Amino acid sequence: MERVPRATARGTFLCQPRRTERANSGEAMHAEIISVGTELLLGDTVDTNAAALGQRLAEWGIHHRHRQTVGDHQGRLVEALRLAQSRAEIVITIGGLGPTEDDLTRYAIAEILGRPMVRDEAVVRRLQAFFRSRGVAWVELNGRQADLPEGGEWVANANGTALGFWVPTEDGGGVLALPGPPNEFLPMLDGPVRELLRGRGGVPLYRRTLRFVGIGESLLAAQFPELMEGERPTVAPYAKPGEVHLRIADADDETGRERVRQVEQLIRAKAGEHCYGADEETLPEVILSLLRREGQTLAVAESCTGGGIGARLTEIPGASDVFVGGVISYTEAVKHAHLGVPEAVLNGPGAVSNECAVAMAQGARDRLGATWGLSVTGYAGPDAPEGRLGEVWIGLAGPDRAEAVRFAFRGDRRTVRLRAVSQALTSLWQALREPARMGHS
Amino acid sequence: MERVPRATARGTFLCQPRRTERANSGEAMHAEIISVGTELLLGDTVDTNAAALGQRLAEWGIHHRHRQTVGDHQGRLVEALRLAQSRAEIVITIGGLGPTEDDLTRYAIAEILGRPMVRDEAVVRRLQAFFRSRGVAWVELNGRQADLPEGGEWVANANGTALGFWVPTEDGGGVLALPGPPNEFLPMLDGPVRELLRGRGGVPLYRRTLRFVGIGESLLAAQFPELMEGERPTVAPYAKPGEVHLRIADADDETGRERVRQVEQLIRAKAGEHCYGADEETLPEVILSLLRREGQTLAVAESCTGGGIGARLTEIPGASDVFVGGVISYTEAVKHAHLGVPEAVLNGPGAVSNECAVAMAQGARDRLGATWGLSVTGYAGPDAPEGRLGEVWIGLAGPDRAEAVRFAFRGDRRTVRLRAVSQALTSLWQALREPARMGHS
Repeated sequence: MERVPRATARGTFLCQPRRTERANSGEAMHAEIISVGTELLLGDTVDTNAAALGQRLAEWGIHHRHRQTVGDHQGRLVEALRLAQSRAEIVITIGGLGPTEDDLTRYAIAEILGRPMVRDEAVVRRLQAFFRSRGVAWVELNGRQADLPEGGEWVANANGTALGFWVPTEDGGGVLALPGPPNEFLPMLDGPVRELLRGRGGVPLYRRTLRFVGIGESLLAAQFPELMEGERPTVAPYAKPGEVHLRIADADDETGRERVRQVEQLIRAKAGEHCYGADEETLPEVILSLLRREGQTLAVAESCTGGGIGARLTEIPGASDVFVGGVISYTEAVKHAHLGVPEAVLNGPGAVSNECAVAMAQGARDRLGATWGLSVTGYAGPDAPEGRLGEVWIGLAGPDRAEAVRFAFRGDRRTVRLRAVSQALTSLWQALREPARMGHS
Repeated sequence: MERVPRATARGTFLCQPRRTERANSGEAMHAEIISVGTELLLGDTVDTNAAALGQRLAEWGIHHRHRQTVGDHQGRLVEALRLAQSRAEIVITIGGLGPTEDDLTRYAIAEILGRPMVRDEAVVRRLQAFFRSRGVAWVELNGRQADLPEGGEWVANANGTALGFWVPTEDGGGVLALPGPPNEFLPMLDGPVRELLRGRGGVPLYRRTLRFVGIGESLLAAQFPELMEGERPTVAPYAKPGEVHLRIADADDETGRERVRQVEQLIRAKAGEHCYGADEETLPEVILSLLRREGQTLAVAESCTGGGIGARLTEIPGASDVFVGGVISYTEAVKHAHLGVPEAVLNGPGAVSNECAVAMAQGARDRLGATWGLSVTGYAGPDAPEGRLGEVWIGLAGPDRAEAVRFAFRGDRRTVRLRAVSQALTSLWQALREPARMGHS
């Protein structure tokens, strides 16, 4: 049931508090995020923190219906905190905990809670010791990071001087303040914040994400119209660069998980040939695992992607036991000298051709001594011969044979290169899982 | 002067409208963004659109103090729209304009404006023709994308079926609805949205961004304490991966631009040796330009970065006239066979050493026939010999000589690799602009 603020006149509100009634009912709590920082409004920073926190709240079964973003301004921050408090038991601020005069979050929180500010001398001494160890002079302003609204408790930050804090309120909720730098914020989420909040949710959400390549979002969704409309579990498609993810979600209890499992089976029965993995598994990981299992190795020959395939594969720790390396052949001379592409190919069909892609893949395989060679050559733009912008050939040389497939990608240079990398990995994966279909999908 | 909602009791608000008084005064208007979509709250999508729009609002001189994010829920969307209307003349929604039942934005806007909804039959016919041309069946639901609140006007979308729309209000502002997919949203920003909104701002903001490498944020800021506190212009540092950007901003009029120019000169006089470019210029672009000017070429030899340097350089259109390519030498065998790293080096100091980095850079330069060879070899983790995690050697072979420098990066595998790529480009840039200092910065 919804209880939205009633507009009593244009631009005038009376927001109904929803806190007390719900807090006493034992239901899952509601949280509201307030992202603080003028740089967020100016667009100099993209709010990745709020997205990461949103994911966690869903996992922990905490309702989350509104997010606010305000600049470094105490009046507007107080206003946002009050509005959030009227709608949610748990209010979480991100940012504004640093030592400078712009960092106002702790003072705004003390104000809305009507608590005095207490300076924690133990924290002051720790900060002073830290500054000393770095050889940095202590200035009085730094002491602000030791200020805590009365009744609050610190939340540890392993990667910075700004501690978070939690001020519990009588309804079982509270206000949580977290620092903004992502390298401090994100580790706190999966450590102390998780400990603090997880028990305050209802039945957490159980999510299973299936990852697909070689099929578009609408075509995939059209295979399961009844599932896409279901409520238990919900099934939602997400288009990612070169991939589609289907997220199946239900309550994280026995029946909910069982429903998710059944729907996963239904989906795999119909579209399993395009499903390369689940949850956090990435396509490079799956490819490296398949190669490792067969005791095989891989080399690449990259023209228009300039190293992008190698970079993706080597994101995975331990790639070196199957990925031997490759040649970035950005000029014809390098294609000829280092991959053995015949001059007749370069002068005939040219560097963007079936023949060249095949020769590059064979060259990578043979010259680097790998089981497989994977090549890409194409016109990423903006310059390209008439009608050939986005034309990309992907070549694959396997233990027995070599061939190439032509793709026509739309979009700007960045998009064509991204798609070329994704498609090269997709083609390789398809060949590895079903060698007879190599190159024909 | 601030006019924040007055809290009349805990959780209860009376928001003072600020619209009429300001609209009649000729001041710059205020805009408020509402990002719509459950996927934003769940964290499945990061809100890059709102950041891009925030940048434009600042450039157009439109004030922007609050942002709200709500899910696909008409009641909450209406509530958010009313709150935004109470604080800003221009309300901009992002998302929720698609044809499905979840897409509620146009109906919520009609509701708060008290306007009936009108179906534009010309748009229906255009949509039907589009679906026919794609061989996709027309379903009645698609007609929703032709629904417009009375008095509204369409805003063109060159990249999708969801048109935007603008409904003017009597105070000179209005409500603007824009579609959520970034590839549709972003081109609209710099086309029709710019035309619509630019004239509604005050004096636009003039920004100049100076880009630095080889110096940290705090060290850079500490050189100009008086500038960092200035108001006209404001100077703000932003830490980016491997770089620091200083943004100088003032009014976009003659005196404002002149103040920015003077401050830029002051900054360059003190820290110019670290400043590689300005505004949208990237480090790879500057490097390629420097090489092109000298008629020189570059080859890379990448170990732990796996192709990441090549990928960064080839993001730039036309890289091929100076970047010849490289070798991804992920194994010792490839380092030896394709870059000529002596076995004595691999068996002695090893693959992560001064000697190996130098030999790799020389091998890239000589074997690929370039003026410069740039190499990277290191331990990105998570596995590494005791105490050597994050140790990265960057080698540079120039026309006359070759040498390598050792770096110790902190962070996880992703961070170490990112920093290695940034540092390799930085080292190359420093050598190119001042060859005598090569490798010693």
